[in-house]
Amino acid sequence: MSFSPLTEQLIQALRTMPGVGYKSAQKMALYFLERDRGGARRLAQAIDKAMDGVGHCEDCRLLTESPKCHICSDATRVQETLCVVENPTDVSAIEASGGYEGLYFVLMGHLSPIDGIGPEDIGIDQLINRLKSGTIKELILATNPTVEGEATAHYISSCVKDIDGLTVSRIAHGVPVGSELEQVDAHTLNHAISSRKKLD
Amino acid sequence: MSFSPLTEQLIQALRTMPGVGYKSAQKMALYFLERDRGGARRLAQAIDKAMDGVGHCEDCRLLTESPKCHICSDATRVQETLCVVENPTDVSAIEASGGYEGLYFVLMGHLSPIDGIGPEDIGIDQLINRLKSGTIKELILATNPTVEGEATAHYISSCVKDIDGLTVSRIAHGVPVGSELEQVDAHTLNHAISSRKKLD
Repeated sequence: MSFSPLTEQLIQALRTMPGVGYKSAQKMALYFLERDRGGARRLAQAIDKAMDGVGHCEDCRLLTESPKCHICSDATRVQETLCVVENPTDVSAIEASGGYEGLYFVLMGHLSPIDGIGPEDIGIDQLINRLKSGTIKELILATNPTVEGEATAHYISSCVKDIDGLTVSRIAHGVPVGSELEQVDAHTLNHAISSRKKLD
Repeated sequence: MSFSPLTEQLIQALRTMPGVGYKSAQKMALYFLERDRGGARRLAQAIDKAMDGVGHCEDCRLLTESPKCHICSDATRVQETLCVVENPTDVSAIEASGGYEGLYFVLMGHLSPIDGIGPEDIGIDQLINRLKSGTIKELILATNPTVEGEATAHYISSCVKDIDGLTVSRIAHGVPVGSELEQVDAHTLNHAISSRKKLD
């Protein structure tokens, strides 16, 4: 070890970020100290500002500086449809696709008993209360097509099945548009065949 | 774009780090905001402390909080040998090898006219003044075996050749110890053969 204590502390703090090992953290620390002290100061400020300012939307749990996020406070969105996703990045992806005009509810994760993540940690109570209030007519479950995502979707649909006048749907799974069949995995192909739709 | 302004500013600030693209920066920002706000605060503090506290050793230019680094202020090190390296990480590597007990001089880069990096940017004047003061008897050039590293070593050796009583050496290049010949590149192998040493 040939780094000074403060440099070493900076390396250790950088290492806490996902995907950053000791070597990368060392490169980042030396980059800041040797080349871009201004950039480092700006990063420290951006972190402090974001931690002070960014909270969760009281309706959909998306990250926002306001009590409600820009989607929930947009009166032109379809107020009767609610799409449940696992993460804020899923909202970005769906927004970028341009095919959805309703509202969102972000679980910030999925059910995972092994990691101690239960219904209360992903806001299921808040979701059910919102659905019971009655504005929402359709609930679209867009959790990931993974074991945990499927289990989460299944759990939510079982919780809300007694709410009157609410349609619950799951996003379609199958062969990605534009892909070649021979490159699609067997699991997806099986699903695509068993969920085939009749043509009119 | 579905992130709030402060989140987006944090992502942009994280992107300035080497090896971090938009997707990684997004993952880091969401990780901090969702999972580890304490870790984010600690990172911001570590950055500020390091930028305030860490400077360069007045003798060898290594990063340090004191006027002199822990190597230059260690009286048990051999004071007559000076090893010139490009980066602080090179000092770490040589220290870890355990085979060197002298002092260092860190260039913090190499000559690179195309990037506008000349002798004054890598502290050649400071190095020459130190060598002229007379304590150093041997100068070991341990810049990298790259085009720029070789050019830098050559430039330094030409600058110091008139200093009386100073031996200048270059670290040996050849086949790495423990490697297999068939896996060593042609350039290294050529060098290893042309620089062969007679056995006694």
